[in-house]
Amino acid sequence: MKAPKRDIAIIGVGTTKYGEHWNYSLKDLITEAGIRAIEDAKISGNDIELIVGGSMSSGMFVGQEHTGALFADYMGLNPKPAIRTEAACASSSVALRVGCMAIASGMHDCVAIGGAEKMTDVYGSQATTALAGAMDRDNEAYFGLTFPGVYAMMAKRHMHQYGTTREQLSLVAVKNHSNAMHNPYAQYHKKISVDDVMRSPLVADPLRLLDCSPIADGAACIIIVPAESARKYTDTPIYIRASVQASDTLGMYMRHDITTINANIQAAKLAYQMAGVKPAGIDVAEVHDCFTINEIISCEDLGFCKKGAGGKMVQEGETQIGSRIPVNTSGGLKAKGHPVGATGAGQIVELVKQLRGDAGKRQVDGAETALAHNVGGSGSTVAIHILSRNRGKVC
Amino acid sequence: MKAPKRDIAIIGVGTTKYGEHWNYSLKDLITEAGIRAIEDAKISGNDIELIVGGSMSSGMFVGQEHTGALFADYMGLNPKPAIRTEAACASSSVALRVGCMAIASGMHDCVAIGGAEKMTDVYGSQATTALAGAMDRDNEAYFGLTFPGVYAMMAKRHMHQYGTTREQLSLVAVKNHSNAMHNPYAQYHKKISVDDVMRSPLVADPLRLLDCSPIADGAACIIIVPAESARKYTDTPIYIRASVQASDTLGMYMRHDITTINANIQAAKLAYQMAGVKPAGIDVAEVHDCFTINEIISCEDLGFCKKGAGGKMVQEGETQIGSRIPVNTSGGLKAKGHPVGATGAGQIVELVKQLRGDAGKRQVDGAETALAHNVGGSGSTVAIHILSRNRGKVC
Repeated sequence: MKAPKRDIAIIGVGTTKYGEHWNYSLKDLITEAGIRAIEDAKISGNDIELIVGGSMSSGMFVGQEHTGALFADYMGLNPKPAIRTEAACASSSVALRVGCMAIASGMHDCVAIGGAEKMTDVYGSQATTALAGAMDRDNEAYFGLTFPGVYAMMAKRHMHQYGTTREQLSLVAVKNHSNAMHNPYAQYHKKISVDDVMRSPLVADPLRLLDCSPIADGAACIIIVPAESARKYTDTPIYIRASVQASDTLGMYMRHDITTINANIQAAKLAYQMAGVKPAGIDVAEVHDCFTINEIISCEDLGFCKKGAGGKMVQEGETQIGSRIPVNTSGGLKAKGHPVGATGAGQIVELVKQLRGDAGKRQVDGAETALAHNVGGSGSTVAIHILSRNRGKVC
Repeated sequence: MKAPKRDIAIIGVGTTKYGEHWNYSLKDLITEAGIRAIEDAKISGNDIELIVGGSMSSGMFVGQEHTGALFADYMGLNPKPAIRTEAACASSSVALRVGCMAIASGMHDCVAIGGAEKMTDVYGSQATTALAGAMDRDNEAYFGLTFPGVYAMMAKRHMHQYGTTREQLSLVAVKNHSNAMHNPYAQYHKKISVDDVMRSPLVADPLRLLDCSPIADGAACIIIVPAESARKYTDTPIYIRASVQASDTLGMYMRHDITTINANIQAAKLAYQMAGVKPAGIDVAEVHDCFTINEIISCEDLGFCKKGAGGKMVQEGETQIGSRIPVNTSGGLKAKGHPVGATGAGQIVELVKQLRGDAGKRQVDGAETALAHNVGGSGSTVAIHILSRNRGKVC
């Protein structure tokens, strides 16, 4: 995997509020996010040459496949080509990676990256059943394993091996709910305490309800162009300094160590190399906190602290806004919400706002370089993007 | 949409037999096709830098999403990045287009394109329900429309407007079943007559059972590299001279004319321009015959005959092997089978064999240039690839 031959910049972003949108269909969601991104980029729909849209399980959720063409259709962009990507909860980060390829290949000059999921009124099955499609269906899901179960095993082992505490898990949720208070697009605007987490129902020991990201509806959209033309559109282009992805087994039973995600390690190494930065050079990060334990494990794997020290780092407040490495300023998946196909694109929306200095009360002062970390399943796919206010070296 | 900045060549192809594979799971299918393509390309799995896999509705069919990572996993390719693309029955043609982008972008130098679908033992719903996810669920499928219904309307109107006959529809099926007799990978090895078609049960007037492509399991795989390095691997690289895609509405009710597919017209125009060839320069074509009427409509839209003359062209034998423009030498979707996510990649497998001169008894003599035409849904996505033995101009 090498850097693209052409630098790429983000010129517009848009998102819906995440939450329970009973009056919105999947296509309403993506259309709203798409129009906001187009308006933000100050372009017309005609400028868009390609749509790449991520959705995870629109078939099992709402009976709708072919969502690339659906997005093009309802955004009024026919006959422009449209591609759906799917990589479970990393679907729209992978869409962004395909968008980068499309531009760097010389085939397209302006690409809309979408992500959307409609999870609250499901078609023909339950949301948990659809989500379990991200794991090995034949060998694990079929026998009753669910994602809370997967991450509970990871948490148990992490606690055993590194002394991570139940309180440290809770503090991830407390921080992310606190950050979401200042994000108008977040699903929850509700401060919670460590006691609240402890009193919430047990889902899969040791994980409780408030350790889990919620079922949500939502969409997000990003407009990208070649870096050389970005300043035609905006005074604050945000450059993509690395777009990287790695894979691991779908089955947990095939992993050597469940306190780490090998695809995190592989993707992070490549991403830092491609962007020419080190973990200490990251000013703000969105880290995939589908369950509280994942923020802890992934912060370690991303090199924000030593292996095993993720729980302590949260407890010491190092991941809070204003501290060493603010993580999930948006509220994260936990409190901003986790409409799975939209999540990766939504992380980018937050970081673009941070790097533009437009994040309001949750702004990280002087943020120059940001990292988005998006996990599919239990880490079978990991996609990492590093964004910067500075174009930097050709990457 | 422009040509990629780097020429691309196919160095290996592999396919499973299409049909009812009761002892094969989705992952068994893709693994078999993948290993055959790797062997054909004489590379090792380590050479592959990216996997792009198309599957349409693996969630609704077998409860498995995240099939990009699944393919990487079961082909032993972790931690290589893996992307699933979905565009209904055009899923793996779109995967090939993403593969072209990946190489032309400079990000990857050897990409495996897969396509797979397991449709015969479905999970939680019926195959027709899953397939209807390719149309507008909210506005059409929900009210009971199915794909045989969609194409039946197109057929009725085409017959009314252009005088296309019931016999001409049947002759498409007769020809494709005859071609499949010589394709060991085809689902059906059974000659049929016009009478057989007429005696088969009515599915959606005027379409009968033998007008419809079958439900199938199957997978296909293609290995691509930059053209400049292709001769390191093979003496018979096949060059991708055009990789093009266009979109149209999902809903039939929004189309101005249902005797043509606008995305066919748009994509064909761009493809011929990119490849620098005209319809008359195509020696052999795979044309998306999900229902017999679609071969007729699409041959017209692709410029193989005048609009409205598609039925007559079949009747006069012009699309037979040895005639003016052989169409669906593989047996087509009708007789080779239509495992939807595999179909686009499978068309490319056939054409590579034709251009290499390896197609045995179904060989088109002296074939130099070939066209693959793959439709998603009712033409909401159309992907066209033009392949050639000759590298030609940089495209």
